[in-house]
Amino acid sequence: MEVGFLGLGIMGKAMARNLLRNGFRVTVWNRTLSKCQELVSEGASVGETPASVVKKCKYTIAMLSDPSAALSVVFDKDGVLEEISSGKGYIDMSTVDADTSSKISEAITKKGGYFLEAPVSGSKKPAEDGQLVILAAGGKELYEEITPAFNVLGKKSFFLGEVGNGAKMKLVVNMIMGSMMNALSEGLCLADKSGLNPQTLLDVLDLGGVANPMFKLKGPAMIKGSYAPAFPLKHQQKDMRLALALGDEHAVSMPVAATANEAFKKARGLGLGDHDFSAVFEAVKGKGSSGDA
Amino acid sequence: MEVGFLGLGIMGKAMARNLLRNGFRVTVWNRTLSKCQELVSEGASVGETPASVVKKCKYTIAMLSDPSAALSVVFDKDGVLEEISSGKGYIDMSTVDADTSSKISEAITKKGGYFLEAPVSGSKKPAEDGQLVILAAGGKELYEEITPAFNVLGKKSFFLGEVGNGAKMKLVVNMIMGSMMNALSEGLCLADKSGLNPQTLLDVLDLGGVANPMFKLKGPAMIKGSYAPAFPLKHQQKDMRLALALGDEHAVSMPVAATANEAFKKARGLGLGDHDFSAVFEAVKGKGSSGDA
Amino acid sequence: MEVGFLGLGIMGKAMARNLLRNGFRVTVWNRTLSKCQELVSEGASVGETPASVVKKCKYTIAMLSDPSAALSVVFDKDGVLEEISSGKGYIDMSTVDADTSSKISEAITKKGGYFLEAPVSGSKKPAEDGQLVILAAGGKELYEEITPAFNVLGKKSFFLGEVGNGAKMKLVVNMIMGSMMNALSEGLCLADKSGLNPQTLLDVLDLGGVANPMFKLKGPAMIKGSYAPAFPLKHQQKDMRLALALGDEHAVSMPVAATANEAFKKARGLGLGDHDFSAVFEAVKGKGSSGDA
Amino acid sequence: MEVGFLGLGIMGKAMARNLLRNGFRVTVWNRTLSKCQELVSEGASVGETPASVVKKCKYTIAMLSDPSAALSVVFDKDGVLEEISSGKGYIDMSTVDADTSSKISEAITKKGGYFLEAPVSGSKKPAEDGQLVILAAGGKELYEEITPAFNVLGKKSFFLGEVGNGAKMKLVVNMIMGSMMNALSEGLCLADKSGLNPQTLLDVLDLGGVANPMFKLKGPAMIKGSYAPAFPLKHQQKDMRLALALGDEHAVSMPVAATANEAFKKARGLGLGDHDFSAVFEAVKGKGSSGDA
Repeated sequence: MEVGFLGLGIMGKAMARNLLRNGFRVTVWNRTLSKCQELVSEGASVGETPASVVKKCKYTIAMLSDPSAALSVVFDKDGVLEEISSGKGYIDMSTVDADTSSKISEAITKKGGYFLEAPVSGSKKPAEDGQLVILAAGGKELYEEITPAFNVLGKKSFFLGEVGNGAKMKLVVNMIMGSMMNALSEGLCLADKSGLNPQTLLDVLDLGGVANPMFKLKGPAMIKGSYAPAFPLKHQQKDMRLALALGDEHAVSMPVAATANEAFKKARGLGLGDHDFSAVFEAVKGKGSSGDA
Repeated sequence: MEVGFLGLGIMGKAMARNLLRNGFRVTVWNRTLSKCQELVSEGASVGETPASVVKKCKYTIAMLSDPSAALSVVFDKDGVLEEISSGKGYIDMSTVDADTSSKISEAITKKGGYFLEAPVSGSKKPAEDGQLVILAAGGKELYEEITPAFNVLGKKSFFLGEVGNGAKMKLVVNMIMGSMMNALSEGLCLADKSGLNPQTLLDVLDLGGVANPMFKLKGPAMIKGSYAPAFPLKHQQKDMRLALALGDEHAVSMPVAATANEAFKKARGLGLGDHDFSAVFEAVKGKGSSGDA
Repeated sequence: MEVGFLGLGIMGKAMARNLLRNGFRVTVWNRTLSKCQELVSEGASVGETPASVVKKCKYTIAMLSDPSAALSVVFDKDGVLEEISSGKGYIDMSTVDADTSSKISEAITKKGGYFLEAPVSGSKKPAEDGQLVILAAGGKELYEEITPAFNVLGKKSFFLGEVGNGAKMKLVVNMIMGSMMNALSEGLCLADKSGLNPQTLLDVLDLGGVANPMFKLKGPAMIKGSYAPAFPLKHQQKDMRLALALGDEHAVSMPVAATANEAFKKARGLGLGDHDFSAVFEAVKGKGSSGDA
Repeated sequence: MEVGFLGLGIMGKAMARNLLRNGFRVTVWNRTLSKCQELVSEGASVGETPASVVKKCKYTIAMLSDPSAALSVVFDKDGVLEEISSGKGYIDMSTVDADTSSKISEAITKKGGYFLEAPVSGSKKPAEDGQLVILAAGGKELYEEITPAFNVLGKKSFFLGEVGNGAKMKLVVNMIMGSMMNALSEGLCLADKSGLNPQTLLDVLDLGGVANPMFKLKGPAMIKGSYAPAFPLKHQQKDMRLALALGDEHAVSMPVAATANEAFKKARGLGLGDHDFSAVFEAVKGKGSSGDA
C-alpha cells in the first residue's frame, strides 16, 4: 500500500518509519526537506511539496505541529488542495481544534477528496512502538480503507462520527492529562517540602488506584529535573487552551483545568515551552523553597 | 499471632476479617458494639472497651474514621492509654494528620508502649482483597514485629521514618487522587456537552498514558450516577484540607489541589458527603446543562 | 458638530442621546431600525445603512455588542467600508479584542480614512450620565478632533498609543472587575452561611479600604437576587475570556482571573448570560445551602 | 476614662496613642516592654504584666498579632485571667478565629468578667487617624460602656451579636480584600506584558466603578516594588486560611479565594511574609517575563 506522509517532527518521523518497516511504500515531505534524509535512507521517497505528494499517492497522511501548520500545508501555494481530487484521501493526524479540522474538511471534500481527521493519543514512545490510540472522525469509508495503516501506527483506533469529534476527543484527553501532570507536580513539591522522599511517593502511587504509565515514566525524570521533550509543553498548553475554549463554547465550567492551564502558562513564561510538558513541575515549584515562619 | 482490632467501619471490618481468615486470633471492638457480631460469627472475640482489648493483646491495630475518633479511642475513659504499657504495641492505621499522630505517639511512648502509625492507600476493595499499601512510620522495631499482619492486610508496606511521615504520605497521595478525580469529572462533562460519548472517553483514557485503575473502576459508575461509598466524599475532602494545611505550613502553593478542594466542598454542600468521593462529578456538572446564547 | 452613530443598544442609545442633548447633530443607525424611533423623536436623523451614515457624516461613532457585530458593520454589504474615505473618521467605541480592532483599522486606513478605537469603562448609568472613561488609541489627530464628543460622553478620556491598546486596557479593567465581583459573591455567601447579615457585610465593606462604587451599587441588588442587566454577564465573560487570551499570548499566568472566568461560565450554563454580570453570585451560591456535618 | 492596653505592634501603638491624645488615661503593656517607652513619654503608664494591667483598669483593650498571642496573654502565667473579675471588661480587638474568641470569652465570663471581641477593619493609616471600622460582638452592655473609646479609635462601630461574629466578619472582609489584591496584581502584570502603562491602568481604575482606596494607596507603591508593611502578608494569608476554614465548616465553595490564598502562600515561600500583603504582586509576576515562542 502506498501512502504520502507530511510532517516529520518527533511524532511524524516515528510514524512514517513504522509504515516503512511494515511494508508500506511511503513518500515523505517536510517543511525543512533535509529532515527527510534519514527516512530516505530507510527506503522512503521524497515529495518536493505537499501537492506533489498528494499527486503521487492515493492516501496522504499529515502529522503537523499545530493548527496553523495544518492549515498552511493544505491551503498555501503547492499545498494539498492543489492536487486533491476525487478518489484521493487525506488523513490529518495532527492535533488541531475542531474549527481547523472543519475548514480543511470542507476544502478537501469540495474538491471531491475524502477527509478523515485522526489525531492520536500518545507521544514519542507509543509513536515509535506503533502503540498510538487513533481518534478518527469524518469519512467512514476512508476510515475503513486506511485501517491497514492505522493498524501499524496504533494499538487501537476509534471512529467517532462527524469531523471535529476526533479533535475534540483528543483535547478532552489532553486536558485530563495536563491536570494530572499538575496534580503530580504539586504532590512532588509537597512531599519534598514535608520531608518525604519524592521517589517513595512515586513508588506508593505506582502501587495504588491512581497508578498510571505517565506518572511511572515521567515521575523519576521530573525528580532529576530532566525534561527531554516527548510532548512539548507549549503544545500541551495549547491543548489546554483549546479544551477550555471548547468548554467556553458549551458553557462548561472547568476550574481545575483552568488553574492547571495557568501553571502551564507560567512555565511558558519561564522559557520552558520547548521542554517536555512535565516541566510544569518547575513552575509549580517556583523559587519558593526557603520557607518562612 | 494475637491482635486487637479497634474500629469496624467499611475498612476496618474487611481488614479484621482478613486477619481472621489468615489464622490470626483477633479481638475486636467497635463504638457500636453490635457491629462486632458479624466478625464474632467468623471467629473473633470481642473487647468491651479499647482498654480491655489492649489489656488482652500484645498488639492492637486501630482503623478509625477521623482524627477525633482516633484521639478519643486513645485518650477517653476506657481508652487505649489506660492499659498500654511496656512491651505492648499500638498500630494506628487511621488516616489522620501528623499532629494527631504525634499526640498519640507521645502519650503511648510515655506509658512505655510502642507506637506505629500506618495509614493505608486503598479503599474498600483493596481492603477486602488484602491489597492495601501500608505507609508505616514511628517504631521501627514494632514495624518489624507487626509485619506478618501487614503481609496479610496489604500487598506492600513502607517504613517512612519518624512518626507523622505515614500520615503525610497518605495525605499527599490522596491529594493527588482528589485532583485526578476532578480532572476526570471535568473531562466527562466536557465530553458530554461537546457531543462525545463519555464511555468512549473512558475507553480512550484506558488505552493511553494516563490509564489507571481508579478511572477504570469509577468512571462507568460515575456515568450512571452511581456513587456507593468506597471512600466517602467527606473523608476525601478532609484529606484535601489536611494536605493543603500541610502545604500551608511549608509555604507550598498548590492551586490545582486548592481548586479541587473547593469542588469537594461544593459537593458536601450539595449533601453528597456520605457518597463516594467520585460524586464530586455531580458538583462539577452543576445544573448548567441548558446552554446559552 | 455632526456625528454618525451606529448601534443603539443599552450603551449606544444613552450615548447618542447625550450627544443630541448637548447640541450635536446625530444620524443614527441600528440593525433593528425600529429602535431608532425613540431618538428620532428627540431630534436624531436616521441612516438606512452604516454606509449611508458614513457618507453623510464626517465622523462616525460605533457602539456594538461584540467583535462579530463590530466587524460586520464595517465589512458587510452596505458597511462602513463602502463610504469611508480620505478626511472621514471612524471611532469604534465597542469592546473588542485587539485583533478585531487592528483588522478594522487596517481596512479603514487603507481607504484613506482615520480610525480611532475608543472602548469605554463604565456601563449603563455612567453612559446615561456622560460619565464614561474613554480609552482611545490609534489616530492621534482624530482623537483631538473628536474630543468635543468625548467630553460629552465621558468624564475623562485617555489616549493610549497604537491601535489595540484601547481594547487591551479595557480588557484588563474588566478582568479586574470580574474577579472583584467573584470576590464579593464569595464573601456574601460566606457571610450568609456563617450567620452574618450580608447587608452588614456591605456596610462594613463600604467603610473600609476596599469600598468601591460597584460593591455599593450592585451589592444590595445581589442580596435581593435582582440582576437587571447594566452589563450583561455574557459580555463580562467574553471580556474575561479575551483578557485571558491576551495573557496567554504573553505567557502571563492569572489563576484568579481564570478561576473567576470559570464561575462566569457556570453562570452562563445556568442560563444567566443575559442578566447582569453580578448574577455570577447565583453560580457562586450553587444549590448547596443545606450544609452537612 | 481609664483603660488598659495590651499589645503595641503597628496597630496597637497607633490606637493607644489616639486614646491618650483624646484624654483617656492609658496603662500599656507589651511583651517587649521597651516598646512601651515611646507611649510613656506621651503620658501612658506601664503595667508589668497583663494581669497587673487588668488589676489596675476597669476596661482592658488588647490588640495582638495572632490567635496564639491572643490566647497567651489571657491564659499564660501573669495573664488577664488572673485578675479579671466581676465588674471588669476585656475587649479583644485582635484578629482571631471564632474558636479562639469563644475560648477567651468562656474563660473571662466564667471568672465574672465581661468580654467583647472587637476586631477592626483597616490597617496602619486608619489606626493612626482613628478611622478604623470596629466589628464588635459579645457583651452588649460592655459594648455600650466602651463606646467612648471606640469613638476615638474608629469612625464607625458595629455590634454583631454573639461572640465569634466579629471575628467572622473580619475574616470575610479580609478574604475579599485578599482576592482583590490578587486581581489587581494580575491586572498590573497583564498590563505590563501587553505594552500598557501600569500607572495608566491605575488611573483608569480610579475613575471607574471599581475605584477604591486600597488600589489608589497601594497600586503606585506596587509598581515601584515598595512593600513597607502596613498589613504583613503572613497575616493576610493567615486570614485567608481562616476564612477558607470557616467556609469549609459550612461547606461553602470559594474557588477564587482559594486560588488567591495559594498565591499568598507562594509569596510566603518567596520570603515575603513580613512585607506588606501587596507583595503578593511579586509572586504573581513570577520570574516569567522573558516570553516564549
